Amino acid sequence: MIYLDNSATTRVCSEAAAAAAAAMREDFGNPSAVHGAGIKAKTLLEKARAQAAKTLSCRPDEVYFSHSGTLANNTAVFGAALSLKKRGNRIVTTAAEHPSVGRCMDALEARGFEVIRLAPSADGGFDPQALLAAVNEKTVLVSAMLVNNETGAVNPVHLLRRAVQAAGAPALVHTDAVQGFGKLPVSPAKLGTDLLTASGHKLHAPKGVGLLYIKKGVYLPPFVNGGGQENGMFSGTEPLPAIAGFGAALAALPDPAKTLPEMQNKMGLLRGLLSQIPSVRFNSPENALPYILNFSLSGVPSQVLINYLSAREIYVSAGSACKKGRRSEVLTAMGLAPDRIDSAIRASLSRETTEEEIRAFAAAVKEAAGSIRTKL
Amino acid sequence: MIYLDNSATTRVCSEAAAAAAAAMREDFGNPSAVHGAGIKAKTLLEKARAQAAKTLSCRPDEVYFSHSGTLANNTAVFGAALSLKKRGNRIVTTAAEHPSVGRCMDALEARGFEVIRLAPSADGGFDPQALLAAVNEKTVLVSAMLVNNETGAVNPVHLLRRAVQAAGAPALVHTDAVQGFGKLPVSPAKLGTDLLTASGHKLHAPKGVGLLYIKKGVYLPPFVNGGGQENGMFSGTEPLPAIAGFGAALAALPDPAKTLPEMQNKMGLLRGLLSQIPSVRFNSPENALPYILNFSLSGVPSQVLINYLSAREIYVSAGSACKKGRRSEVLTAMGLAPDRIDSAIRASLSRETTEEEIRAFAAAVKEAAGSIRTKL
Repeated sequence: MIYLDNSATTRVCSEAAAAAAAAMREDFGNPSAVHGAGIKAKTLLEKARAQAAKTLSCRPDEVYFSHSGTLANNTAVFGAALSLKKRGNRIVTTAAEHPSVGRCMDALEARGFEVIRLAPSADGGFDPQALLAAVNEKTVLVSAMLVNNETGAVNPVHLLRRAVQAAGAPALVHTDAVQGFGKLPVSPAKLGTDLLTASGHKLHAPKGVGLLYIKKGVYLPPFVNGGGQENGMFSGTEPLPAIAGFGAALAALPDPAKTLPEMQNKMGLLRGLLSQIPSVRFNSPENALPYILNFSLSGVPSQVLINYLSAREIYVSAGSACKKGRRSEVLTAMGLAPDRIDSAIRASLSRETTEEEIRAFAAAVKEAAGSIRTKL
Repeated sequence: MIYLDNSATTRVCSEAAAAAAAAMREDFGNPSAVHGAGIKAKTLLEKARAQAAKTLSCRPDEVYFSHSGTLANNTAVFGAALSLKKRGNRIVTTAAEHPSVGRCMDALEARGFEVIRLAPSADGGFDPQALLAAVNEKTVLVSAMLVNNETGAVNPVHLLRRAVQAAGAPALVHTDAVQGFGKLPVSPAKLGTDLLTASGHKLHAPKGVGLLYIKKGVYLPPFVNGGGQENGMFSGTEPLPAIAGFGAALAALPDPAKTLPEMQNKMGLLRGLLSQIPSVRFNSPENALPYILNFSLSGVPSQVLINYLSAREIYVSAGSACKKGRRSEVLTAMGLAPDRIDSAIRASLSRETTEEEIRAFAAAVKEAAGSIRTKL
């Protein structure tokens, strides 16, 4: 198997799987319980929180574990907008957000908020001038993803705070860093965000855990109602196996500053090999995060290539896993022609992807380019 | 260790832990992905769904997996109320609900709904006459828990549908069956509910998964916004390790009709032994689910007894794990005196609890009754 769909989800690393197993069978208590078994479970929870805080260079009490990245995004977007609605009505975001932000924006628009969606530039990022023009003194939330999940485009998220300051806006600043966290050096303090979303399963932790960074002193009403876990922010019994796994996966994570050059080499190899196939066109910008390459094989519908590769146990996706059957909003917003969008493929690497796998993948695409065209 | 806090959470059974491990390390794909690895993950997901449907005697497409029981309750309560708000303004529930229902009711009340909370009778259930009187033709939601998490009181949930029919109300009927599912024979068709909530980790599955039964044909708007997983109802990547574990735990679950008499014997033993301690008073009704026994040890604050037992590796709780530090709303609503509430202890069994453990626990309580009183 050659697994190149790591932006959809990753294989859980052995460290994370072991931590999850221990939380299921040994320290299985409820962290809210006040007896010995509960205290042991609470200790696991706080150990994971301390690790996440270390990875984010923030305080442990700024890390709130959620049951998913989606729930963290819902909490951030609704929380910010609703808590500040008396101070303004405008929200600034991008047209390329993940649906877990995008659909919240649609819902807030339906409730009367004015939502400005910055169009992606040709390289998939947002235009800084457009951002500055969009944020006004009535803006209550500015939210942009750090790394686009379909193209790997890296947004200049550090400009969000500047735009808010320039406008004198009361806005909270949020970034959905699900695709960037652990791959780029991500620090909310350096990015200047009040809120930041991450997810475990993109980083070799189990599915079923996310986190929301909330800057100390920022008030956010919770989205979910219930028993008040995670200091009231994410009610529901903490998904401790996944949280412990998240902590272990972060502890096992190499320093992004070390990994990035390695990934740039791997991505360089992949681009080099694919560029030798005449019908390949790259949709990811040159300076995308070197984990994601979006490309189109002219005339070959995405699903046809996915199936061809899947039959050879090579796994890639068309855009994101969350948009099955619908034309990519991101590539559409980037202004690509429909036939190029309909043949788009996303190969997403992990730090464990080998040169050998990259060569085998590129060779299979080359074969496909010949054989599928021959059949048409 | 003698673990008698199974209503807070349970130890994950070996079958569930193995299924979760396989979903983390082997079939780790994203169920939304359309390649081979995604299809394998989707197969795990649907296998768990089929098992849950079998346990509930319902159709697989009526089972929606959520990231927690809390999220399922939020979705049911908000969804029902908001989807029917044009047809009426009244909601009927009980004063003894879990906070994941109770806090949603508070929020809906703040939005203008009229929420009628049936007071628990002395035995912790609701009064059928009060239910009939409360439901009128403007009622849009009737929600009552099946088994109370603090006392084990079993509510006559089958009466909810009758009350709705008698009033000619447009109401959807919901039950939070988290504490009853898998312990009583639970079928939404027999109970007459449109919506039913369950949770995995109360039944030896991992923390981080719940389910919402939605009767075929019932429309419910989603609570979480995002990628549209679980047929739009629970956006966010499916927590597949926990879901696969849930399915495996349900497959390993003995028939409740067989387990109940065994549990009645165990509970009879526990009550018999504790009733020999003069300062013990039972707060659970006689006919409570034989998994939960709430009792007070006069003059001994709950936390003192919890600590005494915890030092001996015997784990029980004061009320529910979700209410740390606050006086039990349920026991208050039942009309118990404050000193009895403040000394309340919940011992909750699992099917794996042995007679030997029960005897050791009762002996420890007896010891505590002597020794702690002596010290006061």
